[in-house]
Amino acid sequence: MENNILKGKKGIIFGALDNSSIAWKTAESVYNEGGEFVLTNAPVSIRMGSINELAEKTKSDVVPADATSLEDLENLINVATEKFGKLDFILHSIGMSVNVRKGREYTDLNYDWLTKGWDVSAVSFHKLMQSLFKLDAMNQWGSIVALTYIAAQRAFPNYNDMADNKAYLESIARSFGYFFGKDKKVRVNTISQSPTLTTAGKGVAGLDGFLNYADKMSPLGNATAKECADYTVSLFSDYTRKVTLQNLFHDGGFSNVGVSQEVIDAISSKS
Amino acid sequence: MENNILKGKKGIIFGALDNSSIAWKTAESVYNEGGEFVLTNAPVSIRMGSINELAEKTKSDVVPADATSLEDLENLINVATEKFGKLDFILHSIGMSVNVRKGREYTDLNYDWLTKGWDVSAVSFHKLMQSLFKLDAMNQWGSIVALTYIAAQRAFPNYNDMADNKAYLESIARSFGYFFGKDKKVRVNTISQSPTLTTAGKGVAGLDGFLNYADKMSPLGNATAKECADYTVSLFSDYTRKVTLQNLFHDGGFSNVGVSQEVIDAISSKS
Amino acid sequence: MENNILKGKKGIIFGALDNSSIAWKTAESVYNEGGEFVLTNAPVSIRMGSINELAEKTKSDVVPADATSLEDLENLINVATEKFGKLDFILHSIGMSVNVRKGREYTDLNYDWLTKGWDVSAVSFHKLMQSLFKLDAMNQWGSIVALTYIAAQRAFPNYNDMADNKAYLESIARSFGYFFGKDKKVRVNTISQSPTLTTAGKGVAGLDGFLNYADKMSPLGNATAKECADYTVSLFSDYTRKVTLQNLFHDGGFSNVGVSQEVIDAISSKS
Amino acid sequence: MENNILKGKKGIIFGALDNSSIAWKTAESVYNEGGEFVLTNAPVSIRMGSINELAEKTKSDVVPADATSLEDLENLINVATEKFGKLDFILHSIGMSVNVRKGREYTDLNYDWLTKGWDVSAVSFHKLMQSLFKLDAMNQWGSIVALTYIAAQRAFPNYNDMADNKAYLESIARSFGYFFGKDKKVRVNTISQSPTLTTAGKGVAGLDGFLNYADKMSPLGNATAKECADYTVSLFSDYTRKVTLQNLFHDGGFSNVGVSQEVIDAISSKS
Repeated sequence: MENNILKGKKGIIFGALDNSSIAWKTAESVYNEGGEFVLTNAPVSIRMGSINELAEKTKSDVVPADATSLEDLENLINVATEKFGKLDFILHSIGMSVNVRKGREYTDLNYDWLTKGWDVSAVSFHKLMQSLFKLDAMNQWGSIVALTYIAAQRAFPNYNDMADNKAYLESIARSFGYFFGKDKKVRVNTISQSPTLTTAGKGVAGLDGFLNYADKMSPLGNATAKECADYTVSLFSDYTRKVTLQNLFHDGGFSNVGVSQEVIDAISSKS
Repeated sequence: MENNILKGKKGIIFGALDNSSIAWKTAESVYNEGGEFVLTNAPVSIRMGSINELAEKTKSDVVPADATSLEDLENLINVATEKFGKLDFILHSIGMSVNVRKGREYTDLNYDWLTKGWDVSAVSFHKLMQSLFKLDAMNQWGSIVALTYIAAQRAFPNYNDMADNKAYLESIARSFGYFFGKDKKVRVNTISQSPTLTTAGKGVAGLDGFLNYADKMSPLGNATAKECADYTVSLFSDYTRKVTLQNLFHDGGFSNVGVSQEVIDAISSKS
Repeated sequence: MENNILKGKKGIIFGALDNSSIAWKTAESVYNEGGEFVLTNAPVSIRMGSINELAEKTKSDVVPADATSLEDLENLINVATEKFGKLDFILHSIGMSVNVRKGREYTDLNYDWLTKGWDVSAVSFHKLMQSLFKLDAMNQWGSIVALTYIAAQRAFPNYNDMADNKAYLESIARSFGYFFGKDKKVRVNTISQSPTLTTAGKGVAGLDGFLNYADKMSPLGNATAKECADYTVSLFSDYTRKVTLQNLFHDGGFSNVGVSQEVIDAISSKS
Repeated sequence: MENNILKGKKGIIFGALDNSSIAWKTAESVYNEGGEFVLTNAPVSIRMGSINELAEKTKSDVVPADATSLEDLENLINVATEKFGKLDFILHSIGMSVNVRKGREYTDLNYDWLTKGWDVSAVSFHKLMQSLFKLDAMNQWGSIVALTYIAAQRAFPNYNDMADNKAYLESIARSFGYFFGKDKKVRVNTISQSPTLTTAGKGVAGLDGFLNYADKMSPLGNATAKECADYTVSLFSDYTRKVTLQNLFHDGGFSNVGVSQEVIDAISSKS
C-alpha cells in the first residue's frame, strides 16, 4: 500500500537481517508510506545478513548497535536525532535464545545462556526505551512497537526460554508505556505475530509442524511478515494514537480459537 | 475425601440429573465433607433423571424449580432457609441450548430458541442471585459457584450459542459479585471445567473427537466430574474466602497451553 | 486525516444519532478517507437525531432499520448491496438498556427490560452477521467492527446490565468471527472504547465522576469519539487484514493500568 | 482451620522471614493441617529474621539456601527428600528488587541491579523447578506454588522492575508447568495476592496509599497474609488436583473490578 500515511514521520528500525525478516518488510512498508528511518542491527547480524541492500532500497543509513549496550543505543539515538530531529516511531524486532540455538531443553537450561538471551531479547527493550526517555528523543504522539509471540501467555513446548523472555518484554511495554504515556504522550505496544518463517525462526525445533497447526487453527490463516509490516505501519500512523500498553494479536485469529474443525478432524482420523 | 471441611455449611445444589452430572458428584462430595443441602432441578429433569436416589443417599430434600421462574426460585430459597437458616453455598450447574439440541448451526440460529437457551443457561444465574440478595438469604462469607466453559473466551465451532451464554453467565458473576461482595461479604465465582461427558453434554456434536483433543492438550489430562466436585468443595470451604469475581479454570492446564507435542505430532503425521 | 485509505470500500454504518455519536464521527472519517456507505438507525433514533444532516455531508443514503428485526436487516443489506455490490465494512454501534434508562439497579432488574436491552445491544450483532452471511453480502477481506466497553471484563457498579450485554456481544464477535473467517475471509473485531460522553452515554448515572477517574487512570487520557473513528478506519483498511476475533482496547491505556499516581494521590489526600 | 487436609504431605517452604511473612503464615497453616516441611531462606534472611522460632513452633528443620545457587538448591532438596522421601508441595515466596531498595525509578534503572533482582525473584523459580525435576523429587499429584502480584498484568507506577520479574515468574509457571504436568503429574500455579504489608513490602514507596486504594477497590477488601496461607493450603491439598498452569487471583476481587463506588466518590469529592 502507498497512501503516504507516514509522511513526515521519522524513526529507527531494529532487527532487519535479510528479506525474510519482519523488520525488513516493515522497513519497506514504512518507506512506501513516506516514512524515513535509520536501520540498525548487531554488528554480527549486519555481517551475516544483507541489510545494506535494504538501506539502499529505502534510502536509509545503517548504524550498527548492540542492543544490550547502553553506549551503542545512545550513539544510535544521537545519530538518528541529529539527522531527523525527534523521532516518531521505533520498531524493536530482536530475539535470540542461546538455549534454543544449542538445543538445550527447557527442563535442562544453562543459566548463563538464559541470561544472555534475556538480555538480548527482553532487557534490550527497556534499555532502548530508557535511552530514548532520558535523551527526550521521541515526539509527542510517537509510537514504539516490539514484536512478541503468544508463548508469553500459553505454553508451547518448543519455544523454550523465549516464552519467558517475551513475557518479560510485554511487561516492559506496559510498565514503561505508563511513564512514556504520562510524561511524553508516546504510546508503547507489542504485536503478537503468527509464527513466521524468518531466518531466525528456522532454528526452532518442529517449526514446520507447528506452522501447519497454527495455520489450521487460525480462521484467516497465519499472518505473513508482509502483513505484519502493514499492521505495524498502522500502529505508527496517526490512526491509532490512543492505543497504548496493549499486546495486540496479529495472528489470523489464532489467539481466540479454542479448536478448529480441521484440527479436530486431524486428531480424530489419526486415532 | 472426608475431612469435614464443610461441616455446618448449608446450601442449594442445582442441576443434578443423573450420576454422570457434575452437580451429582458435587452433592456427594459436599455430603461427604459434612455439608447439608437442598437439591433442585427443573420438573422435567427430575422426571427424566434419578435425583431422588441422590437425595436418599445424601439425606437431602428435593425441591423442584424452574430456574427461569422468579416464583419458583423464591419458593426454593424459602424452603431452604426455613430448613437451614441462611445459606453458605450455592451451585449453579444449568445449561441448555435449543439450537444445539435441534442441530441448528451457529450461522443459522433460531432466535426464539436462542432466547430460551440464554434464559435457562445464563439469566437464571442472575435471577437466582437477585432472589438470594433480596431475600437476604446468604450468610457472610458464603460462596456462590456457577459452572462454565472456555468457549466463553475462545471460539469452538460446535459449542454454538452456548459459548455466548457462558460469556454472559461469567459476566453476571463479576457484575453481581461486586454487589454481593460489598453488601453481603459473599463471594461469586465460576469454574471453567474441562469438557465432561455428562448426559447433557452428549448432545454436542463431535464431542468425542473434541474430548480426545482436549485431553491431549492438557498437561494433566481432562478433569473429571468427580475432580470438579472436589474443586467446588474447596471453593465452598473457608480456605478460599477472598477469592471472588474470578473465572477459575479447572481443566488440567488446557487453558494455558498453546499446543502440546502430542497435537503437533498428530497433525504432522496426518499431513 | 485524508489519505484515501478506504478508497473503493463500501459499507454500512449503524448508530449515528447526532454529532456526539461515535458512529457519526466514524461516518465522517470514513467519508474523508474515500469510503462510501449507507447510514442506518432505528426509526425512532432517526426522528430524535439529526442523521439526515450527516447523510448530506457524506453523500450517503439513510435506510431505517430496527436492528432486532431480521426483515429490516435483510432489507437494509439488500438496499446496500444493490447500490454498492458486496460490502467491505460494517460498524455496529448500538446499545441500550431499559433498566439503566429507568434507573433500576443491577440487584433489582426487571427481566423483560433486560431481555429487550440484550436483544437491541447484543443479539442485534448476531442477527446482522447472520443476515450478511446468509446473503453472502461481504467481500473477502471485509471488516466487521462492533463497539464495546471494558465492563465486559470488569465490574463497574453503574454500568448495570450493559456489562453483560457487552460480554455477550464480544463473545458473538469471536464465535461468528470463526465462521466468517474460515468461510468468507472476513474479519470480526470489537473495539473497547474509553467512556465517551455521547447523547446515549449521558443516561449513565455518575458518568462525570467516572470519566474523570478513567482519564486520570489512562496514561494518554481518555480516547475521544473522533479518535475512535480514526481507529475504526484503520480496522476497515487493508493495513489490518489478519486481525480478527480480537477485542481491541482503544482507551489511552486504561485497561492495562492497575493504578495511576494521580488516583493514589486523590485517594490519599481524601482520607 | 484444622481439618488435617494435608496429612501425610511433605514439602519445602521458601521465604519465611518473620511473622508478617506470607510464607510464615503458610508454614503455620500447613502445620495445623497436618503437613510436614523443611523451612528455607537465604542465610542473610535467616540472620535478620526469626525463622528458628517458626521452626520450633512447627517442628521443622531450617536449611539455609541461596535460591539463586543450584548447589544450594540441590543440597536443600536432598536434605528434604532424605528426611521425607519424595515431596508433595513447594512454596516459592521470594522477591527482591535492588532498584526498589535503592530508590531508583523505573525510567532510570541500574541494569546490574535489575539482573540481580530478576535472578533472585524470578529465575530462582526456574532453578528450583529444574532441580526438583532433575532429582525427580516430586510425588505424583504434587503441587508447586509461587506468589506473585497483579503488576505482572497491569502497570503500577511504584512496583518498578518487580512487575517485569513477576511476569517472568508467571511465565515460568506456565512453561515449566507443561513439562511437570506431562512428565510427572505435578501441578504448578501462581497466586496473585492482594498487596500485603510484610516486612519486605514495607520498602515499596507509597504502599500505604496503595493498600488503601486496593482495599476500597476490592469487594471483599484486601486479602490478608493468613487468608493467603489458607488459600495456599487448598492448592496443596487433593481438592485441586487438576488446577495447573494458572495464575490465581486471591485479592478480594480487585483484579476484576473496573472501579468501585468508593473510589469514584473519593475522586469526585476531591476535584
